[in-house]
Amino acid sequence: MILLRRELGEALRERRRSQGRTLRQVSAVASVSLGYLSEIERGEKEASSELLASVCQALEMPLSELLDDVSTRVALAEALEMPVAAVNAAAA
Amino acid sequence: MILLRRELGEALRERRRSQGRTLRQVSAVASVSLGYLSEIERGEKEASSELLASVCQALEMPLSELLDDVSTRVALAEALEMPVAAVNAAAA
Repeated sequence: MILLRRELGEALRERRRSQGRTLRQVSAVASVSLGYLSEIERGEKEASSELLASVCQALEMPLSELLDDVSTRVALAEALEMPVAAVNAAAA
Repeated sequence: MILLRRELGEALRERRRSQGRTLRQVSAVASVSLGYLSEIERGEKEASSELLASVCQALEMPLSELLDDVSTRVALAEALEMPVAAVNAAAA
């Protein structure tokens, strides 16, 4: 089963790292505890909508951009989960 | 503040209605209580990743498609929230 929180967490972590910022830095700007942000990034906790908005702001990334990124990730995961027969049918 | 749960809820409701299905029908297929699904659609509760996967399956819609839909909604809401000066600058 593809879980939104995992793909969301990976997208957030990738964005933070691409900015060369630490968990500590981003959590401070977003007013979230470091431990909580870390759990979000690892896909272990569901982020509330308010927290997500706050983390996006701290990463200077519009929420729509994050969702677009996550949508692409999920689409890839869906393609990988697809049974071989369905992949063949889609390719034919 | 743009909240993911609200945009997500509206996207889910719109999809369900476009299929001419009732809350009762979809909640039964998704094994979610009718009241909970209704709260999700109204943006009052955060949906867990597992519940979201289950509702998407009941609506026969890949999660990636839902996220794509929600990303578009959020982008529109972001454009509407933008200060006029920024909109003018973007249009220039």
